[in-house]
Amino acid sequence: MAEPEAKRLKKTKRTEPLIINFFEALTPVLHAPGQWRNPKDTSRDYYKPEFWIKVAQLAEKGKFHGIFFGDSLAVYGGYKSQGLGGPFNFEEAAKSGNNFPKNDPTAYISALAISTRNISFGITCSTLSEHPYHFARRYATLDHITGGRMGWNVVTSFLPSAGRQLTDNNELPQKELRYAKADEYLQVFYELLLSSWRDDGLVYDKEAGVFSDPDAIREINFDGNYYKVPGPQITEPSPQRIPVIIQAGASPKGLLLGAKHGELIYVGARSPEIVREKIEETKKLAKEKFGRDPSHLKFLTRIAVVIGTTHEEAVAKYEQMLKYNDPDGVFTQIGVGGGGLDLSKFGKDEDLSKVDDPAAKGFAINYGKQFPGEIITKRFIVDHYHNHNTLFIGTAQEVADKIEDYVEKSGIDGFNFTNIVFPENFENIVDILIPELQERGLAQKEYAVDGGTYREQVYRQKGHTFVPEDHYAYPLRWKSGVSKEKFEKQLGEVKEEQKKYLISEL
Amino acid sequence: MAEPEAKRLKKTKRTEPLIINFFEALTPVLHAPGQWRNPKDTSRDYYKPEFWIKVAQLAEKGKFHGIFFGDSLAVYGGYKSQGLGGPFNFEEAAKSGNNFPKNDPTAYISALAISTRNISFGITCSTLSEHPYHFARRYATLDHITGGRMGWNVVTSFLPSAGRQLTDNNELPQKELRYAKADEYLQVFYELLLSSWRDDGLVYDKEAGVFSDPDAIREINFDGNYYKVPGPQITEPSPQRIPVIIQAGASPKGLLLGAKHGELIYVGARSPEIVREKIEETKKLAKEKFGRDPSHLKFLTRIAVVIGTTHEEAVAKYEQMLKYNDPDGVFTQIGVGGGGLDLSKFGKDEDLSKVDDPAAKGFAINYGKQFPGEIITKRFIVDHYHNHNTLFIGTAQEVADKIEDYVEKSGIDGFNFTNIVFPENFENIVDILIPELQERGLAQKEYAVDGGTYREQVYRQKGHTFVPEDHYAYPLRWKSGVSKEKFEKQLGEVKEEQKKYLISEL
Repeated sequence: MAEPEAKRLKKTKRTEPLIINFFEALTPVLHAPGQWRNPKDTSRDYYKPEFWIKVAQLAEKGKFHGIFFGDSLAVYGGYKSQGLGGPFNFEEAAKSGNNFPKNDPTAYISALAISTRNISFGITCSTLSEHPYHFARRYATLDHITGGRMGWNVVTSFLPSAGRQLTDNNELPQKELRYAKADEYLQVFYELLLSSWRDDGLVYDKEAGVFSDPDAIREINFDGNYYKVPGPQITEPSPQRIPVIIQAGASPKGLLLGAKHGELIYVGARSPEIVREKIEETKKLAKEKFGRDPSHLKFLTRIAVVIGTTHEEAVAKYEQMLKYNDPDGVFTQIGVGGGGLDLSKFGKDEDLSKVDDPAAKGFAINYGKQFPGEIITKRFIVDHYHNHNTLFIGTAQEVADKIEDYVEKSGIDGFNFTNIVFPENFENIVDILIPELQERGLAQKEYAVDGGTYREQVYRQKGHTFVPEDHYAYPLRWKSGVSKEKFEKQLGEVKEEQKKYLISEL
Repeated sequence: MAEPEAKRLKKTKRTEPLIINFFEALTPVLHAPGQWRNPKDTSRDYYKPEFWIKVAQLAEKGKFHGIFFGDSLAVYGGYKSQGLGGPFNFEEAAKSGNNFPKNDPTAYISALAISTRNISFGITCSTLSEHPYHFARRYATLDHITGGRMGWNVVTSFLPSAGRQLTDNNELPQKELRYAKADEYLQVFYELLLSSWRDDGLVYDKEAGVFSDPDAIREINFDGNYYKVPGPQITEPSPQRIPVIIQAGASPKGLLLGAKHGELIYVGARSPEIVREKIEETKKLAKEKFGRDPSHLKFLTRIAVVIGTTHEEAVAKYEQMLKYNDPDGVFTQIGVGGGGLDLSKFGKDEDLSKVDDPAAKGFAINYGKQFPGEIITKRFIVDHYHNHNTLFIGTAQEVADKIEDYVEKSGIDGFNFTNIVFPENFENIVDILIPELQERGLAQKEYAVDGGTYREQVYRQKGHTFVPEDHYAYPLRWKSGVSKEKFEKQLGEVKEEQKKYLISEL
């Protein structure tokens, strides 16, 4: 019997299965404006835990690593902002249900954790939203609840509207300062979770009447530029000690933050060649600036797929979806940053690369690079909205081929699959695409560590519950058997040495 | 057949069943220092969601209203603080497991919500811990997740150690300022949740392509002394709109805050006569200062019970528990406030009412009022620790008699049952005491509103999902069918009128 065609098609040199997540958020519209109007779509139920249990159990059926929850704290207010550049209006976000309303993802995790065994949860949380002491408790709690299945996508907030809400109606700090503060926030977070309890600090000695050993707990007395936090951490050490650190910054400081702290790095580009460049750049920074083994950084990008049993069926399905694309929703999403991009004043068929609005023109030229030879109009944008990131349409074999090709060209380690029509789109991925990827060795048939932590699944190694030795946070951990005096001496040296890694200084 | 003795014993005039909750916290030791050493006790598992699912399902079996989660953000550091008055040490809290470690209760709620149908969740959250914008989103999310089974115990933080952790190592603001800030925090919270979305703002109109109606959403543009929050709220209206407001303050400003906002008021006194005084005082304030119908305020106090099939068995069970009382744990808990009370320097049998340490002497004299004729020594405190609040020991009939007597004397509306040995203590309450209380009409045999919200259970009325008309928050709600212009005019008048209710001015 001949080898199945699928096997023969494999053309990537990648030997490990891809890291795959569903990409979602606690909102009716994350990346597919208008699809809530599709009769097949059930995302109106986004606020119910039962909705998310279904998502998580579907992901587990497909042996996905986890669910990646995007989040934002305030409204996408750039579009139709009358030149104010946002965020001073919520009208279009409200009408289109575009990341508005939006619930807190962290509140759903315990329901999902008890309904699954292997699904991990990467949650986007901004360093703007809470004090690091309070946040460290919440994250450690979630790591306890999930048995170590937590990741944290570290963001510094980019929506001007978030600044308005959380900083007394002031503007967000400039990006450089946000990253410097985020870097210090992570330092506090690490020290609370790693340097204040020794691994074996909780002794539960009934005979001696000692619950936790005070000699194995210490104040961190953190005294930084932005935070002063004495500690100790009020939670006992959790299975992973710190969540898997996820990062997505694309600016120079953002790349540095990822190169320093990130274990999973999200790359937001569409073309595999650009993705490869960004991966290489980040790996180079990680190695040269922070002494990390580049293979310890795993890279993900976003993908949408539409699968049919025939190519024609897939295309027809996508064309059906396109009918529900909501132009105002799309423009609201594009204007999200509030950086002055407001497409409301242009006609549907105007060539945006030629208008005299700098924000619109710049956007159109940049957007157009993904579509060589095309004229970028509002109509074009709406019709091609799903593939401004990566979109593959076809049979399972066709899509798997494209994924292989993409992996080969980009060097990516995995994908966050976003949803177009819920639940059809995710169900098709699990039922039709994943078996094909599994056949090719690109998706895992079983979890690397059954019942394991997120980090064990990512690094595919039982016991690998903590960051690798070359990670910045590694030496900040107070290990079993080390006396307080010895640890404090070590820690002092480590912190002195680590000053050269300050993002604000690089 | 003669009427059962139990029925004949009923001596309270109360006609409605009591409001009953379990009283717990995400920690191994809430109110019973040392019991974790009891071989029957399983509270070591406090961090697991399965532990709490068991608690919640047990409560539901007993037709309890809910679980009341205490919380504190930092260490109980007064004891053995070498006269520093706390909070500069964690050693004794660590050793005794006394509210340390402690996880975030809000993270467990979704697991409990999907595992129960009628249990509500009253969670203690400090106005110190998060920005009101962020907090309002978390609370609305929880109200969505639970289908309206949320209560919020509003506290302003009293632990100096919480101030250290969350305010850059500074001291907590003084109590007067904390209450003024909390009052404004509640105002922001109400306006975000009640005044920014009209009840029918989420229209989900697929034909028109309108998810939410922008004409039914508004910015609150809150501009206060401590907070400036533009809004609008990013979550859609939740079943209760705002959680059941729980309050426990005992100082003059605390009583005012409860009288203004509280729906469930927790009274921390032991003697039913003092409880009655506090209830009457709060009701009087509610009526005179805030125009509220005093019957709309429900009062709860804390109780511990030990039940046996015979009186002797109950006493023996309690004596067995007493063996595990941990003196240092008890003193750590007593020294919690960090107000300088440190009993470490005294002998076990010293008469504390005669020492020359003002904090210890004052405590002993006050504590002694509950035990007339007794000499208050450290030994006495440890042996009577469980009844420094209300403790009843005996058969189900005996305890029910005492509860009836207490209810009659105090006018209390219900109890938060705290736990001594988990799970035995709670199991005994549900299996042995509750049937007796049910027989007497003091505990409900069925939920007032099956599948209802917390507020419907509290007020025993289907549809009563929102605060009564005389509650401060009532007129802040934007009701269906009222235009934005009309609502803003109304709201302006209401807010002007409500200025007379400012806690800082009273």
